[in-house]
Amino acid sequence: MQIEIQLIPSPLSPHLLSNRGVVVIDVLRATSVMVHALSEGALEIIPVATVEEAFQRVKTFPSGTTLLGGERGSRKIEGFDLGNSPKEYIAERVKGKRLILTTTNGTKAFHFVSSGEEIMVGSFFNIGAVAGRCCEVDRDLLLFPSGDEGNFSLEDTVCGGMLIDLIIKRGKKPIALTDASHTAHILYQRFKDNLLEAFHLSHHGRELINLGLGDDLLYCAQIDTTNIVPIFKDGVIRVPLTPSLSPSRLCRNW
Amino acid sequence: MQIEIQLIPSPLSPHLLSNRGVVVIDVLRATSVMVHALSEGALEIIPVATVEEAFQRVKTFPSGTTLLGGERGSRKIEGFDLGNSPKEYIAERVKGKRLILTTTNGTKAFHFVSSGEEIMVGSFFNIGAVAGRCCEVDRDLLLFPSGDEGNFSLEDTVCGGMLIDLIIKRGKKPIALTDASHTAHILYQRFKDNLLEAFHLSHHGRELINLGLGDDLLYCAQIDTTNIVPIFKDGVIRVPLTPSLSPSRLCRNW
Repeated sequence: MQIEIQLIPSPLSPHLLSNRGVVVIDVLRATSVMVHALSEGALEIIPVATVEEAFQRVKTFPSGTTLLGGERGSRKIEGFDLGNSPKEYIAERVKGKRLILTTTNGTKAFHFVSSGEEIMVGSFFNIGAVAGRCCEVDRDLLLFPSGDEGNFSLEDTVCGGMLIDLIIKRGKKPIALTDASHTAHILYQRFKDNLLEAFHLSHHGRELINLGLGDDLLYCAQIDTTNIVPIFKDGVIRVPLTPSLSPSRLCRNW
Repeated sequence: MQIEIQLIPSPLSPHLLSNRGVVVIDVLRATSVMVHALSEGALEIIPVATVEEAFQRVKTFPSGTTLLGGERGSRKIEGFDLGNSPKEYIAERVKGKRLILTTTNGTKAFHFVSSGEEIMVGSFFNIGAVAGRCCEVDRDLLLFPSGDEGNFSLEDTVCGGMLIDLIIKRGKKPIALTDASHTAHILYQRFKDNLLEAFHLSHHGRELINLGLGDDLLYCAQIDTTNIVPIFKDGVIRVPLTPSLSPSRLCRNW
C-alpha cells in the first residue's frame, strides 16, 4: 500500500485519485465538526462551497429537518443555526437532522477530491477508526489536509502523520511512503506527546486563539472519541449503516 | 524577519516575491553543481529550461568559452560537455568558462522566482554563507526547494530547514515562521545528525542510487565547503565581485 499526502490543497485530476482511498482532514475545525455531529446522531451532512448555496439548498428540504452550519473568518454566519465549533454539534441540537455546512477550507476540500474511490472524513476524534478502515480496504491512499486558505496546514498534516503511524503499526503489508508522507509522519512523531503544541504553532490555531476560540483547540485534540468513519458520496456525508467490518474491532491493537 | 518556504514548486506571482530575498535549493543536484562550479572558478552560469535552448544559446558565445552541462533522467545529455554531478565541475574543466545548464527541476525554479528581490543559490556546500547573507540583508525570505518533477522534495526541504536553523541561531531579531517553515525546521532537526538518511529516504535520492550515482549523495551532503553566495540576476548566476560583508565573517559564530 502506498500512502501519499497532498501538502498543499488544490483540485486533483481524476487519474491521481483513480482507485485510491481518500481521507479529508480539517482538524480545526470542519472535519472535527462533521465527525462530532454524525457521532451525535446527525442524519447526514451536505458540504457546500458558498453561503448563498447553503441558503438555496436548505429551502429544498422540509421545514425543521435541516440546519445550517459553518463559518466565515472562523465566525458563525449570520442567519445560520450553528457555527463551526464541534462542541455546538450535540445530540440535543443535531440528532436526526440534516446539516448543510459551509466552511473556508474543509468543505472545498471534498469537491477537490470528489473523483476519489472512497472518500473518508478524518479527524483526531475518529482517527483509529479511519486507520482501521484504511487497512481494511487495503488500497493506495491519498490523505488530503484541507489547508489554511490554500496554504499548507501544520495541524492537518500532523493528523495525517498520525494516521500513517497507525496504519504502519497495524498493517501487515509493507507501507510505501513518499517524500511528503514521510514528512507528515515525522511531524506527527515530533508532536505526538503534545498535539496542542502543533495547534499553538500553527497559523490557524493562533488565529482561533486570538478570536477567543482557544477552547476548540483543546476539544479538537481529543483522540478516538468515536469509531464512526463518515463517507462522502454523491455530494453527501453519511455514516454507512452496515460497515463490513467494525472499526473498533480493527483498532483494538492500538 | 519572516521566513516562508514553498513546499511545492510552482510559478509565483510577483506580489508574493515583492521585497523578499529568495533562496533556490536543489541539493540533488542542480544548485550543488552551480555552487561547486562557481567555487572552482567558473565565470558564470546561465540556467535554461530546455535542451534545445541550451544548444541555441551556446552558439551565441565565442567558441571555447562556454560549456554545456545538465541532465535529463539524471543522465548526461547527448552532445553536452558535462553531466549533473558536482564532482565533474572542477577547476580543470570549468575555470574561466561560462556554463549553460539545463536540469529537470533546478533550472526551472529560477524562472519561477525571477521577480524576487535578490535570488540566491543555496546548497549544503554554501549554507553557512547563504545564512550569513540572509541575516545581512535582513529582509523577509522565501526559500524555494526545486522539488522533484513538480512534487515535494524531502532533501531540499531539509536543506531549507538547516538554513532556517542557522538564521534563528545567528539572528539578533525574532524570526517568524509559518506552518511550512516550521515543518522544514522540524525536518532538519530530525535529520541533522545524518543528512544522508534524508537523502536515502527521498524519492530522488533512491532514484540516483538506482542509477549507480549514489556517490553524489555523499558528495552533496558536505556542509560549508565554500563561502560563496551566487546570485541569479537577469538570467545569469554569478558570484558578486565585492560582497559588502564577507560571508565567512558573518558565519564565524556557527
